[in-house]
Amino acid sequence: MPPLRALVFDAYGTLFDVHSVAQLCEELWPGQGAALSRLWRAKQLEYTWLRSLMRRYEDFARITEAALLHACAALGLPIDEQRRRRLLGAYRELATFPEVRDALAALKASKIRLAILSNGSPAMLRPVVAHAGLGALIGTLISVDPRKIYKPAPTVYRLAVERLGVTRRDIGFVSSNCWDACGAKSFGFRTFWINRAGAPVDALGAAPDHVIAGLDELPDLLRARLS
Amino acid sequence: MPPLRALVFDAYGTLFDVHSVAQLCEELWPGQGAALSRLWRAKQLEYTWLRSLMRRYEDFARITEAALLHACAALGLPIDEQRRRRLLGAYRELATFPEVRDALAALKASKIRLAILSNGSPAMLRPVVAHAGLGALIGTLISVDPRKIYKPAPTVYRLAVERLGVTRRDIGFVSSNCWDACGAKSFGFRTFWINRAGAPVDALGAAPDHVIAGLDELPDLLRARLS
Repeated sequence: MPPLRALVFDAYGTLFDVHSVAQLCEELWPGQGAALSRLWRAKQLEYTWLRSLMRRYEDFARITEAALLHACAALGLPIDEQRRRRLLGAYRELATFPEVRDALAALKASKIRLAILSNGSPAMLRPVVAHAGLGALIGTLISVDPRKIYKPAPTVYRLAVERLGVTRRDIGFVSSNCWDACGAKSFGFRTFWINRAGAPVDALGAAPDHVIAGLDELPDLLRARLS
Repeated sequence: MPPLRALVFDAYGTLFDVHSVAQLCEELWPGQGAALSRLWRAKQLEYTWLRSLMRRYEDFARITEAALLHACAALGLPIDEQRRRRLLGAYRELATFPEVRDALAALKASKIRLAILSNGSPAMLRPVVAHAGLGALIGTLISVDPRKIYKPAPTVYRLAVERLGVTRRDIGFVSSNCWDACGAKSFGFRTFWINRAGAPVDALGAAPDHVIAGLDELPDLLRARLS
């Protein structure tokens, strides 16, 4: 296999643990933290897919807020202005998965270019990357926002090709969201699915090329298999 | 409001109870029936949205099967050929919601045209309509299949306009799936969301015009408000 020239990472769920908000959810509504965090995330993704198909794009910050309010209503959890602001603030300070920093540092040391390609709008993405202190490791932040459509629409993956100035075959795409890895594979990237939960692969007509259990496996895998 | 010339119904979840398969799921895997039925349905919808965005259409029968196999794998439920066939067979014999037949009969008596617009491929849709004995009440079955994309893509709702030969303003669209009612509203239909579960409305930029608790409310509503 030819070596890769760039690695492009999904952000939410891949580098940043979207369920790190469950702790604050639990503090605000004891006994409901995990359920709220799960439904919030599920609705967030659902709204990105539905609005993309309806051609009614709205940016990821607004979708994240709408999904939170819907999830609270569905679970019967009263949410006031202060709680809303605290929870959306927590989304700008998501925890980084424990192995991420060291793995990114090792990859950067190998001279491969690192970028993020995310559903997040720039104003939402920059603070979470800065809070995690990953700005020095990942030079390029690419948001779907200019295309006004969400993953896994092919035009979104094409943004990375254009921004990085390399061909799709030169790009390795890394996501913990299986459907995102499938979408990237369907577009033509070499894909790495981080399957932290041991889930079955999604049946979407394009399976990820590689399955790893954590980002820490990626530097060795690239050395062994791809260069 | 001007009177409607046609009523177009969603099928799965609206006329037919997709969770009527939970009984067979429960028989095959005691204690897991409700969880399997829920996950099967969630994955089925997710795959329609994702494949539509990826432009990798596959017909609804195959998506339904892939979603079943994924749900079983995710829940750790071993499924063999015989169980697979029984469950997919149950999907061709879904229960009709209890109020559906009388409501459709009342609507048909009012001389309004009745049609189904469904994600289901024709070969999947015809048997479930026949099994429910609704063929004589609903004259027109419209499948998204010729467009090779799923709801809520606008082109799918346009199919109903073309097949029925009326304008979008003449069509009332009825669905229990809130996102489907929102998609139809976004396209330009007058929409009726059957909210059997008392769920909050989805925030998709286009809300249903009317919310009813069951299909039995529709004949009176049309008489009172729309004609």
